[in-house]
Amino acid sequence: MSVLKSLAASFSAIALLATPALVAAQLEARNVILIIGDGMDDQQITIARNYLAGARGRLSLDQMPLRGVSQVLTVSEHGTPVYVADSANSATALATGQVTSRGRIATSAGEDKPITSIIEIAEAAGLKTGLVSTASVTDATPAAFVAHINARFCENPEAMKDVTFSGIRVGDCSHHLKAAGGLGSISEQIAVSGVDVVLGGGLTHFEVPAENSSDTVIQVAEANGFHVVTTAGDMASAPKDKKLLGLFSPNTLPVRWQGENGRTAEKPEPSWANHITQYIGSVKMPDPMVCEPNPDYAGTPSLKQMTDVALDRLSNDRGFFLMIESASIDKQSHERKPCGSIGELAQLNEAVDSALAYAKLFPNTLIIVTADHGQAAQLIPEESLFAAFGVPVFTRGRLARIKTPEGAIMGVNYATNDFIMEEHTGVNVPLFSNAVGVGLVPNMLVQPQIFEITRDYLGL
Amino acid sequence: MSVLKSLAASFSAIALLATPALVAAQLEARNVILIIGDGMDDQQITIARNYLAGARGRLSLDQMPLRGVSQVLTVSEHGTPVYVADSANSATALATGQVTSRGRIATSAGEDKPITSIIEIAEAAGLKTGLVSTASVTDATPAAFVAHINARFCENPEAMKDVTFSGIRVGDCSHHLKAAGGLGSISEQIAVSGVDVVLGGGLTHFEVPAENSSDTVIQVAEANGFHVVTTAGDMASAPKDKKLLGLFSPNTLPVRWQGENGRTAEKPEPSWANHITQYIGSVKMPDPMVCEPNPDYAGTPSLKQMTDVALDRLSNDRGFFLMIESASIDKQSHERKPCGSIGELAQLNEAVDSALAYAKLFPNTLIIVTADHGQAAQLIPEESLFAAFGVPVFTRGRLARIKTPEGAIMGVNYATNDFIMEEHTGVNVPLFSNAVGVGLVPNMLVQPQIFEITRDYLGL
Repeated sequence: MSVLKSLAASFSAIALLATPALVAAQLEARNVILIIGDGMDDQQITIARNYLAGARGRLSLDQMPLRGVSQVLTVSEHGTPVYVADSANSATALATGQVTSRGRIATSAGEDKPITSIIEIAEAAGLKTGLVSTASVTDATPAAFVAHINARFCENPEAMKDVTFSGIRVGDCSHHLKAAGGLGSISEQIAVSGVDVVLGGGLTHFEVPAENSSDTVIQVAEANGFHVVTTAGDMASAPKDKKLLGLFSPNTLPVRWQGENGRTAEKPEPSWANHITQYIGSVKMPDPMVCEPNPDYAGTPSLKQMTDVALDRLSNDRGFFLMIESASIDKQSHERKPCGSIGELAQLNEAVDSALAYAKLFPNTLIIVTADHGQAAQLIPEESLFAAFGVPVFTRGRLARIKTPEGAIMGVNYATNDFIMEEHTGVNVPLFSNAVGVGLVPNMLVQPQIFEITRDYLGL
Repeated sequence: MSVLKSLAASFSAIALLATPALVAAQLEARNVILIIGDGMDDQQITIARNYLAGARGRLSLDQMPLRGVSQVLTVSEHGTPVYVADSANSATALATGQVTSRGRIATSAGEDKPITSIIEIAEAAGLKTGLVSTASVTDATPAAFVAHINARFCENPEAMKDVTFSGIRVGDCSHHLKAAGGLGSISEQIAVSGVDVVLGGGLTHFEVPAENSSDTVIQVAEANGFHVVTTAGDMASAPKDKKLLGLFSPNTLPVRWQGENGRTAEKPEPSWANHITQYIGSVKMPDPMVCEPNPDYAGTPSLKQMTDVALDRLSNDRGFFLMIESASIDKQSHERKPCGSIGELAQLNEAVDSALAYAKLFPNTLIIVTADHGQAAQLIPEESLFAAFGVPVFTRGRLARIKTPEGAIMGVNYATNDFIMEEHTGVNVPLFSNAVGVGLVPNMLVQPQIFEITRDYLGL
């Protein structure tokens, strides 16, 4: 009985399910854990590896038996190829197997029709389901697994008409209002969903009244059987007989790490003479910096904590599908914050450890780890390849010079634009799987195949 | 006898080796073909795939049974980690299994001692060896497999003291002069080497007199048993009883493709108002362009042609080691020429086809395909993710907007610096192998392991 004792000690769900027959069924059940590093391309992984494990080190990711790449696919509203995705269309591909246009949440390009997601298929077949993210649970990646709407910005009932960002209109979802016969905003769709565990940020999107209602979206969720928590402690002690909605910050969860004194990548400052011609004068490069804990992170549940709670609650004799996202690898890269991205990649790596530990106990658990799209950050030389020329050579973007624990300096460049946020890139992204995936997951695929592999493995 | 007939038809070396016993030995012999895409990171592969095969397409590379990544390692002269390599130190790692400092050709960091290369080990064991490159054969990547010197720029006897580039001193190799007890310049070391086939560019480095000699380096090579050719036709008809040195252009071979009318990536041009603040005014983006044949390429042997000649000459009953480099994926990226890089990646892909065809006939042939380091090019959105904001959003680097055969536009950004050449990046690089490599080549390794795997597979 030592295996079962170990199971029981690790996962309290087992202890609750007392009979040996049920435990045996749980050991047989097929589960899929899909872990998404938002923006986690090979640059991000290499930067994080160098910092966390050293240039010769290995992340848990690096030790997974299957490694390959996933080609990201996007189309315009008219079906023409688009070479760079956003998180909404790429999450739609992962969640539904359909290629769509940027900004769309599980709706089709052109036609704007809902596309059924793996969560909906799994639920219908009696499997348990879960969504865990360090973003708002209404953000593009988790949203595409549970909601259907034309624009990712329509996260709550008050953000459905003429949605603005920094005062500029970025879209409109009026025709998806419930009054127009639609499914309503993303938070409302989550509130009425059958997802068993939803953990992340985004409280603000649930505190507002539901469309044409005096109830808040939280109250709608509670009426639909969700137990709602807002702290890590309450998450851990939540009753097991209800669905769980954990909302641990107003929007995106605070990230674990930041640059020294909150510093981001900065523009090198050329001297006056260098402005005349680039081959004279000098340049002041940003000072090197360490990464340090982000004080705002205190009290935030880690991605691993949320993962462990989700696995504990989802483990059952019929199987489950769980999506786990480390969202701010991407968000911190948009904001040119390499330490933030490194810390969130460390969080993802810990969630991978939890998933691998679970799969060791429950061997029919397929783990797939991937990214949704590439990001701007580039690991560039701390000393230019052309330093011998003796002229100022520097990026016109923004540079962070990070002191690594192994005693060197790593240059991280952000130079896709000069806007308040960097662009994504269209590079094919990393793909990993545990031993269960060997033979099932090809070493190169297009993103929609991840949906197909998941569906097939779960027998759906 | 149909297999042997097919072999004979494909590889004239077989026809020359008439006896069944020798043919059988040749079928058993262990060979390694190492194909290096210089600067061929996942961005370069994705950009090339989108152009050559479409976003949903596959290159031959993409269909190889093993896919993983190689972590590039570099150190300073004092042994501290350096996170971005150059081609000299990374080729040294591949050729010798030792991590060294930038610019070094198979010599140790700090101590400046020669490090034995796989070519030297293979030769000593009676295997045949070959080097094929679209660069000068004296360029860093091929050089590190056959020569030993402290600085990659010391390519010929006249470039050993106070080497300059654009009038600026970039290094010195005086202490490696033969007069100082050294091995001399890179071209001289190739001329006296035992490599059976050396094909590429670099004639200029062989036409000068050898150190303290009235003979040119070509004459030294001829005296050492090389048959020297300078055209594709002479390469094909070269006698089989001598070593072959093919030098098909003064330096780097002309590349296959160029941008429309020779265009490179270009700087977006913001309006006058946008110079005041980035949130007003407008920007003129570079015009879209197609890729077109480079007229200078006419008459140049393709990488595939050189590969086929090398395979034909090296095939023998004891086994061989062949390094094939597509060098200008990198060189064209340094110069912000995405069409050039795409064409050279197509050349690499064709060389992979030749290697796979050879391995189909001679099953003990291990093929490893990898890159030496990352490059600057990034696939960025043709329409900014932030286009809805209605303000000019554009790179401060250089952008090419390439019209792809599938009817879309692909944005390629170069923004690591503003110098005449872009930087490399430190990303981990792709790694591929054929079926022989499955089980031998891990899906993540550090670059020196490629040397070890090669040595072990060849039983050296």
